[in-house]
Amino acid sequence: MKALRFENKQLQVAEVTRPEAAGEVLVRVSLSGICNTDLEIARGYAGFEGTLGHEFVGVIDELSESGSLERAGSGDETWAKPGQRVVGEINAGCGNCDLCQAGDSRHCPNRTVLGIVGRDGAHAEFLRLPLRNLLPVPDEISDSQAVFTEPLAAACGILERVPITKDDRVAVIGDGKLGLLCAQVLGTTGVGVTLIGKHKNKLLVAKERGLQTMLSESAEGTKHEFDVVVEASGSARGFDLALDLLRPRGTLVLKSTFHGATDVDAARIVVNEISVVGSRCGRFAPALDLLKTGAVDVESLISEEFSLADAVRAMAQAAAPGVMKVLLHV
Amino acid sequence: MKALRFENKQLQVAEVTRPEAAGEVLVRVSLSGICNTDLEIARGYAGFEGTLGHEFVGVIDELSESGSLERAGSGDETWAKPGQRVVGEINAGCGNCDLCQAGDSRHCPNRTVLGIVGRDGAHAEFLRLPLRNLLPVPDEISDSQAVFTEPLAAACGILERVPITKDDRVAVIGDGKLGLLCAQVLGTTGVGVTLIGKHKNKLLVAKERGLQTMLSESAEGTKHEFDVVVEASGSARGFDLALDLLRPRGTLVLKSTFHGATDVDAARIVVNEISVVGSRCGRFAPALDLLKTGAVDVESLISEEFSLADAVRAMAQAAAPGVMKVLLHV
Repeated sequence: MKALRFENKQLQVAEVTRPEAAGEVLVRVSLSGICNTDLEIARGYAGFEGTLGHEFVGVIDELSESGSLERAGSGDETWAKPGQRVVGEINAGCGNCDLCQAGDSRHCPNRTVLGIVGRDGAHAEFLRLPLRNLLPVPDEISDSQAVFTEPLAAACGILERVPITKDDRVAVIGDGKLGLLCAQVLGTTGVGVTLIGKHKNKLLVAKERGLQTMLSESAEGTKHEFDVVVEASGSARGFDLALDLLRPRGTLVLKSTFHGATDVDAARIVVNEISVVGSRCGRFAPALDLLKTGAVDVESLISEEFSLADAVRAMAQAAAPGVMKVLLHV
Repeated sequence: MKALRFENKQLQVAEVTRPEAAGEVLVRVSLSGICNTDLEIARGYAGFEGTLGHEFVGVIDELSESGSLERAGSGDETWAKPGQRVVGEINAGCGNCDLCQAGDSRHCPNRTVLGIVGRDGAHAEFLRLPLRNLLPVPDEISDSQAVFTEPLAAACGILERVPITKDDRVAVIGDGKLGLLCAQVLGTTGVGVTLIGKHKNKLLVAKERGLQTMLSESAEGTKHEFDVVVEASGSARGFDLALDLLRPRGTLVLKSTFHGATDVDAARIVVNEISVVGSRCGRFAPALDLLKTGAVDVESLISEEFSLADAVRAMAQAAAPGVMKVLLHV
């Protein structure tokens, strides 16, 4: 089968052996999305080698024999049949450690992560994941919406980490796809959300969804106004701006994985008694609910679509300035 | 009067004009303590010029006339008389902003801070503070205990910021005076506390109070064990070690004011979904309670005592390796 591989510092679409279900579920990928994490891996920052990609929608191709299949925890697995459309949570825990036993495989120290740690990813014709990672996609959700489930779940993850109350003043820094998803998700709670970014055309997407927007250059004059600021720009400048914008004892949500060390003015965190809260992945179920009801617009974030055979070119395009989501048709 | 001044990059004991009460309270200082913040100011890191010092115990010398005196909020001010022994909270808010009105003068954007921001400090024969900043010292507390009220309150401030529950595994990194106070305060809640440091003799102080201790070199093998880690070493290495020691979704309390930018591996905060919580000052009342009941040993932290006239030498001594609290007799 075809797969977008990163090996020996080389990115290429290669013919590789189709995986076996082998106790898990074999999924035929329909559509996958390129994430900034894929770009960072391809730049050699993440130490991963193999098939890239962790955002996908597909259909179940093959379930392992029931004897060897590790079934989902819920007990209700009748939906899991060949032909069923699915999305999949990307962290596969060991199933045995204290965290996995407590239902938190996202932080299992021995986890594999689809297309990121020790497990081939989604920019391929087929992938395998444990059954407990998969969720059926409701009919109301199209493939080009469902492929956003993973990043949308990551945005929803903020609400797992930080309680938002109705009078909170909330800002999101970064008008890229992650920032646009975070701002929309936070907006669904009914609080006032301001998206801060550098690109008028991207801010417009948020404005059309009824969110407030502000150009970064204007934000720099505003000080100590917000209760919660989400840093989704991935830049040290965004981190500093977040500290400028927070009230004392406010909460800074770190949503982007900066690579390497970041210069942080830790004294400001202490003096203003800021809480910096890291947030990575989120559960898929709330994201599917938002897609089903149309509460979040994801399709405006699609910049371009390529075929898997053209994935190397698609990756280059995804890295170009101003480009948002690039999808791969498998 | 004599005062330890830092001006034009020079540290010296100088004769200066005794302050007027002028709407506040004039306090005759009995004993003051040298803090690392004093050392950082004297190194030119903090941009403050004037009389240093913010840890003190003294007696009320003069109250302003009642007409001009801004009285304490509590209504019970009969204790405030000349001759009364007092300690004083160091942040003096403007009294008018939203934060001050909500009782949080510690974060007032226009605050002055004793010996740190816009207000002459405690290494002097006299100081002035608003009446609402002062607290009477109970008879059970000696001067050499009371002079620790401010740093002990800062340690107590952790409990304002982070809920500690009985099964939490808590570690404190740094066996200096701040770390020893933090470990003892956290120990009073009944949870298991491990103090991690480099100095066997300092760790012994904690051991004698029934706390667990660990040498830093041994801690480096332990991973992901603690629910809460307090960074009180002020070093980037301490920050990294704290991240090593925390379980996923654990809480790192930043207690030290690092000066300048610190290289922080922000990706680890995101991937392990750590909460980094800044903690600066605390309220004095809980600290006085701990001193009154003897729940915390502060006198073991005293390394040396000097007279105010010898304050420059005392500052040099306070900066020497292995030295803990240096006191100034006024």
